[in-house]
This record gives sequence, structure tokens and C-alpha cells, in this order.
Amino acid sequence: MENSSLFDTVLIVGIGLMGGCFAKDLRRLGLCKRIIALDTSHAVRAEAAEIGLADLVTEDVSAAGEADLIMLAVPVLQATSVLRQISPHLKAGAILTDLVSVKQCIVEDVTHLYAEGILTSANPFVPAHPIAGSEKSGPLAAFEGLFLNRWTILTPMPFSTPQAVNRVEQLWQALGANVTTMTPKHHDQILAMTSHLPHLLAYTLVSAATDLGTDLQQEVIQYSAGGFRDFTRLAGSDPTMWRDIFLSNKESVLGMLQRFQEEVSALQKAIRQDKGGVLLQVFTETKAVREKIIAAKQN
Amino acid sequence: MENSSLFDTVLIVGIGLMGGCFAKDLRRLGLCKRIIALDTSHAVRAEAAEIGLADLVTEDVSAAGEADLIMLAVPVLQATSVLRQISPHLKAGAILTDLVSVKQCIVEDVTHLYAEGILTSANPFVPAHPIAGSEKSGPLAAFEGLFLNRWTILTPMPFSTPQAVNRVEQLWQALGANVTTMTPKHHDQILAMTSHLPHLLAYTLVSAATDLGTDLQQEVIQYSAGGFRDFTRLAGSDPTMWRDIFLSNKESVLGMLQRFQEEVSALQKAIRQDKGGVLLQVFTETKAVREKIIAAKQN
Repeated sequence: MENSSLFDTVLIVGIGLMGGCFAKDLRRLGLCKRIIALDTSHAVRAEAAEIGLADLVTEDVSAAGEADLIMLAVPVLQATSVLRQISPHLKAGAILTDLVSVKQCIVEDVTHLYAEGILTSANPFVPAHPIAGSEKSGPLAAFEGLFLNRWTILTPMPFSTPQAVNRVEQLWQALGANVTTMTPKHHDQILAMTSHLPHLLAYTLVSAATDLGTDLQQEVIQYSAGGFRDFTRLAGSDPTMWRDIFLSNKESVLGMLQRFQEEVSALQKAIRQDKGGVLLQVFTETKAVREKIIAAKQN
Repeated sequence: MENSSLFDTVLIVGIGLMGGCFAKDLRRLGLCKRIIALDTSHAVRAEAAEIGLADLVTEDVSAAGEADLIMLAVPVLQATSVLRQISPHLKAGAILTDLVSVKQCIVEDVTHLYAEGILTSANPFVPAHPIAGSEKSGPLAAFEGLFLNRWTILTPMPFSTPQAVNRVEQLWQALGANVTTMTPKHHDQILAMTSHLPHLLAYTLVSAATDLGTDLQQEVIQYSAGGFRDFTRLAGSDPTMWRDIFLSNKESVLGMLQRFQEEVSALQKAIRQDKGGVLLQVFTETKAVREKIIAAKQN
């Protein structure tokens, strides 16, 4: 598979679940010659090293100097700080990219880093987000094929350079993803509805259930197979990652939540007033959406 | 397997997804000698007959006279009407039971039927609810093993008789379920949180997304893998069945929705005010609930 190698050395910053899945597929598909994992957590480094996720697992930011591609796989609000730390070490021509779930705030922060000269045109940054994930956390939970047949959204900016965008696009295609391009703002709006709001509702429902008192709470867990357990899957996702997502995509998330609240009020009223016809119509429409998702092979 | 047969003839009223799954496991495990399926829909009967879900598929309510066990597998609000139709045909000693998701209203209706003499002590009724299901509908979607390792809740009443309760309990155990007993009211409260509210939130979210306008709606479907698709699975469930559930468990559902609303307001405020610490604490607690569900093997 050497001839399909797209990069010599790839540095993955943050070797948790997402970084770990990325590393596994890079290696399985022979997309680079060497993988370096950089992480500030001793426990995470030990786990990543134990299962051999990378050729080198380190806490030394100067390792960035060896990389041709640097993938930021950290919670949103850590991305800028990571870029500041690694920037003095970057090799000319090395491409920076990320897989972070919110794009507008990253793009704004990165714009500042270029304006300040902390990043330069010698190192283009290509903002990216693969629409894939797992509720599990940490390197030991990493698995192969996470990105297969999923979409990766690129939100290229003037600092991205067409050549760098092409190479990052090739990389995601090689990982099995469909690649598309849009503005950071549009990305954040769509993801607020397709990912951030669902997670917020899941966290909220599970949190509401924990307020029920010990006995009832135990029963909620025992009889969770009727739908609740599906919410706990989402609500079991990494707390730090999701705190950062909600804080950094605040406007879109609160906007979508407002739409949700209007709709929930309408259904609440229909239930209270025994308006079965309203419920039946809404439920028939939502069933059609499910069928479209199956047709789009995203189920 | 003849020696493990618990009933001679079982009548299943409503041979949709749930009735179909029940029929498949009855036969696979040899739990009865003969299965009759009763359904008012010509299309459903044709599908059930086509795949041989029952020995006899009929629209003739007098078939109830041949049954030793009658399983009501219809939407909640149809159960009483079915009982009125079959009651003149019942064989003395035949046991009535159901698998309907709401218990308080069924128990009240059935109490009236006994008071009116439409049902008599010759035919005990055992209210039951297996906590298992699928978002799919119709007999063609029926599959084996739905009830394995899931809980079935019995809510016995004076009209149930201990002997009939024992036989229904044996049946569910033979189907692989864990069986427990509680009051109808308690059942409806727990299910409002573990099943009804999650479905209501899923229907609401997917409905809110359909209000986004055609272009954005198409994108929501395309990029649904980040959480939204999990909601569409629930929101793709049978519309009639769920309309009936919300209308017949109104009080508990609206009560749990109120708890949810309080919690969502708290999280909304935390996001708006950048209170990351609040979010992190809530998300850490919900992650622990997920771990308890995995430990309880209900994931």
C-alpha cells in the first residue's frame, strides 16, 4: 500500500476516540509512512502507546516539526492554544487541519493567528469536520472504518490554499468519506440541528431523569429499552468535548432550540387538548423523514 | 418442542410488527399448537398470510371462540373495542392479555367491561407490557427474539386471577423476558420517562427540522449521522400507535415533559451565560447514567 501514501509523517494532536479512529484508518489504508500522537494526558498517552496507535506517542510539542500533516483532534476550545504551542516548530509546507465539530469559531481564531504572524502562509490551515463519531471516549475505544460512507465537510478560507484543500480532500476520500464544501457559518447552522441540538436534548432528558429520586431513577435504567437508552447513548458522549461545542456554537444551538421549543409547545397543546389529528399528521410527516434518511444511506 | 407447549390455540388480535414478533417467537419456541391472527386490515392480513405468521389469518371475530389465550396487539385506544367485539365468542377459561404500552387506561376500561358483564370471571384479563419494540411497522418487519432479555411488566388486577397471572408470566419467561409486577399507575409514570417522552422529543425535533425550508431540510438529512438520525429512528415509529399512547397517558407524559422543560431552561441559561462548569457537571452525571444502563445490560 506504500504507493497510496499521501503524507510522510502525520501528527495527530489529541489521541482520544476521534484521533484514535483517524490513526487506525491512516495505518490500515497505508495513507502515511509514520504517525506521531501528541497528547497532554499521561493516561491517554499510556493507553495509545499500549495498543500501538502511533509510531511515536509524546507530550513534546516540538515533534510537530517532523510532520507533513497536522491533525487537530482536540475539543473545540483547545484548538487555538494547541496551534500557538506547535507553531514555532512547524516545517515549511506542512498542512494544518482539524476534525472539530464547530467551524466558525475555529476559523475566526485561526484568522487571528495568521494576522498576528503566529501562523504564516508557509502552513495553510484547512478546516474540516467529518460527520461521524461515537459516544465512547479515549484511545482504547478507537475502531476502524468510522468515516466510511460518512460526509466530511471542508470550510476552506483564504488561508487554506487550493493545493492544501485538495490534499486534505484526497485524504478524506481515501478514508472512505464523501467530501463537500460550505461556509463555516452554514456548517454550524446545519450541525446545530443535526448533531448539537440532538445531543443537548439527550443530555437534558437524561439529566431530568436523574432528578426523579433514587427508586424511580433505578427503574428508569431498568426499563430503558423503550427509547430512553437511545438518548443515554448520546448523553454518554465526552463531557468536555460537548461543553466546548455548546459554548462555541452558542448562537446556532440556541436558535435551533428556540425552533424546537415552539414545536414542543404545539405538540404539548395537542396532547392536552386531545387533538389526535394534529399528532397523527406530525408523526406521519416525521416518518417520511426517517424514510429519506434510509434512502440517503445515513441510517 | 411439543412438551413445552403452554397453550393449545393462541389468538393474536392485530398482526402488525408487535403481534408478528410475538407470533414468530411463539412458533419458534413451540409455545402453542396453533396460532390464529385476527386483523381488520385486508393489506395486513394478506402480508401476514404471505409469510405464514399464523395457521389461520382472519377478519372473523368469532375465531376468538377457538382460543385458549387471546393477545391484544393493537394500538391502545382500540383495545376496548376489540374486547367488546370478541367477548360474545370467548371460550370459558380462555385467558385475555395484551402488550399495550399504557396500562392505566386499559385497566380502567377493562374494569368497566367486567362491571357491565361484557367480560366475566370465566375469562380473566392479565394486563402486560413487554418493554421492547422497533421503529418498523407491519407484519413483514416482524423478527425473532425481540423480547429476549427485555423486561415484561405485568400490572395484575382483581379480574386477573393468580392462576392466569402465573400462566402469562410463564409465557413471557418462555419468550426469554424477565417478568416483574407493578401497579398500572406506576407503570405509566415510568414509561412516560423511559419511552413516551423520548419519542415525543424525537417527533418534536424531527418535526422542527422539517420547518427549516427545503434546502436546509435536505442538508439535515444528508448530514444526519451526528445524532439526528438516532432521533429519526424513534420518530419513524407507527403514527397511530403513538398518537394513542400520548392521548392515553396524557397526564404522566405532560408531567415528565414539564420536568424536561425545567431542565432544558437550566441548560439553555448555562449556554447563554457561558457557564461551562454547569454543563460539564451535568454531562458528567449523564455519562454515569449511560454506564449504569450498560451495566444493567439494557443497552
